[in-house]
Amino acid sequence: MSSPSQPQLPPNGAIAPKTHLNATTEGWFEYPVRVQPHHTDYSGAVWHGTYLTWIEAARVEYLRSMGIDFAELVKLGCDLPVIELSFRYHRAIRLGQEAIIKTRMNKTAGVRINFDYRMESPDAQEYYVTGVVTLVAVDRKKGKIMRNLPPRVKDALIKLLH
Amino acid sequence: MSSPSQPQLPPNGAIAPKTHLNATTEGWFEYPVRVQPHHTDYSGAVWHGTYLTWIEAARVEYLRSMGIDFAELVKLGCDLPVIELSFRYHRAIRLGQEAIIKTRMNKTAGVRINFDYRMESPDAQEYYVTGVVTLVAVDRKKGKIMRNLPPRVKDALIKLLH
Amino acid sequence: MSSPSQPQLPPNGAIAPKTHLNATTEGWFEYPVRVQPHHTDYSGAVWHGTYLTWIEAARVEYLRSMGIDFAELVKLGCDLPVIELSFRYHRAIRLGQEAIIKTRMNKTAGVRINFDYRMESPDAQEYYVTGVVTLVAVDRKKGKIMRNLPPRVKDALIKLLH
Amino acid sequence: MSSPSQPQLPPNGAIAPKTHLNATTEGWFEYPVRVQPHHTDYSGAVWHGTYLTWIEAARVEYLRSMGIDFAELVKLGCDLPVIELSFRYHRAIRLGQEAIIKTRMNKTAGVRINFDYRMESPDAQEYYVTGVVTLVAVDRKKGKIMRNLPPRVKDALIKLLH
Repeated sequence: MSSPSQPQLPPNGAIAPKTHLNATTEGWFEYPVRVQPHHTDYSGAVWHGTYLTWIEAARVEYLRSMGIDFAELVKLGCDLPVIELSFRYHRAIRLGQEAIIKTRMNKTAGVRINFDYRMESPDAQEYYVTGVVTLVAVDRKKGKIMRNLPPRVKDALIKLLH
Repeated sequence: MSSPSQPQLPPNGAIAPKTHLNATTEGWFEYPVRVQPHHTDYSGAVWHGTYLTWIEAARVEYLRSMGIDFAELVKLGCDLPVIELSFRYHRAIRLGQEAIIKTRMNKTAGVRINFDYRMESPDAQEYYVTGVVTLVAVDRKKGKIMRNLPPRVKDALIKLLH
Repeated sequence: MSSPSQPQLPPNGAIAPKTHLNATTEGWFEYPVRVQPHHTDYSGAVWHGTYLTWIEAARVEYLRSMGIDFAELVKLGCDLPVIELSFRYHRAIRLGQEAIIKTRMNKTAGVRINFDYRMESPDAQEYYVTGVVTLVAVDRKKGKIMRNLPPRVKDALIKLLH
Repeated sequence: MSSPSQPQLPPNGAIAPKTHLNATTEGWFEYPVRVQPHHTDYSGAVWHGTYLTWIEAARVEYLRSMGIDFAELVKLGCDLPVIELSFRYHRAIRLGQEAIIKTRMNKTAGVRINFDYRMESPDAQEYYVTGVVTLVAVDRKKGKIMRNLPPRVKDALIKLLH
């Protein structure tokens, strides 16, 4: 089912969007998108599951910007599967509209690697979707969570946190 | 990125799966699926966003089983957009595997209509994904949340709760 | 972009639908589908690329009905990638509608394995999409076309042709 | 099922790729893509249906480059549904790889609007997929093929042909 046109629910503590100050100072990585026909559903707005494709692409490009090539990582035997996600749909976005997916790493707890998301209009006056995605690093061969990340990945992730 | 092979994180209060007693007594609607090639990613397991297509189909068929034809509802001017969702990926499911999507309505609070989800192996011995999806009823013409549902829908939803 | 509501073009030799006589005598395998919200686009009809997910599922289940478990085949090192496809969209199908995907193997030429498709209304009075998909068997390790299929697969495919 | 790793079939007249001379002189519009996790399947290569999302985005952006805003067109009551498509998969493209989707309008015949496609490596040394997509202009209200395009669209399409 589509995301709503107007529903503006009161923010909920768990994934309430941060006040938007400045993309640069706050360390958000920005990934622009435009709504194509295949992103929409019968309502004319973006289907709620479509966002996960953008969310993923934004994360992969964010990692690339920090020197982590995700395809390389997989070849090296390390995967970063999603183990948890949580999203709120604040306002629908429709065929032809542009938006910015903003993402940044959040403080990690133990093996959990968290990314915050916030999808906004290009002028930052409206926001559409906010959420959090949690990954873990998995050893592809053993099928187990890696407690120690490959050093290059660890260094890059630490940089993302500052 | 793919869902993990093994990662078994400690359950988290927000969306911890209910103890599975009995599908019938507990009022779960069951929707079976099989993993086809297009559901998978490079890892050989189901891509984490694919689940949202199954989750939606299970909800639409659950509503149909209660006499609510979703396409009819939309024609009548009422939409049920997703305004919030939250999922945990407990165990990966791979190409060719079968699973059961279980869903049931949860108690609603105000205008929020909540569905619980639990995706299990056919023998109910393993579970793959658990989560919650929240919808609201929206008047398609006005683009506003409907505080009073169409009577037929309301009656059907009330039945789902018992 | 969506598939059309009415456009009924004159059939074109390349992929003109076979006259529909009798599903059973003609050896069609039937796979039923229902249009869910995520299958649609802004037009309210099914997005033209969505059909490929149904087409694939119908083919995999057809093979299963003949004793070929596709996931097993892949584990054994044999893949069946699509190398060519061709579809015509005759009539749109909309949110909530049901349809039958009909498929059958067509005579193969050399290494090419062809499947015909025809998507119809449940009462067989209307047809929506017709097409052909060509596969080849590939040795996953060598990355080369297999000129000799695994015997079990060969036997099953030969049966499909009669 | 995935597209193949090597299969290099002899070109087939219907959709044989044009010899690549020069993107600019030959009037190809270029749309770059990168393979993200959700584009792949169990084989590690792009799932054969994924290409249709890129093909569509390339076409919409090509039209935009000529002054046709697709979302505007739809608002004005004109849709451009796909009525036929035909693709050949020459070589697989894998997680993390980049490619260029090239598209250009082909001569139209009657109401049919044809777009040629050719997906290549960034250095134009390899090609992955070639194909043709045929659209018609449909009056959304009447659900009929428009024999006379809106003048602005007609003018833009004529420009695309030269």
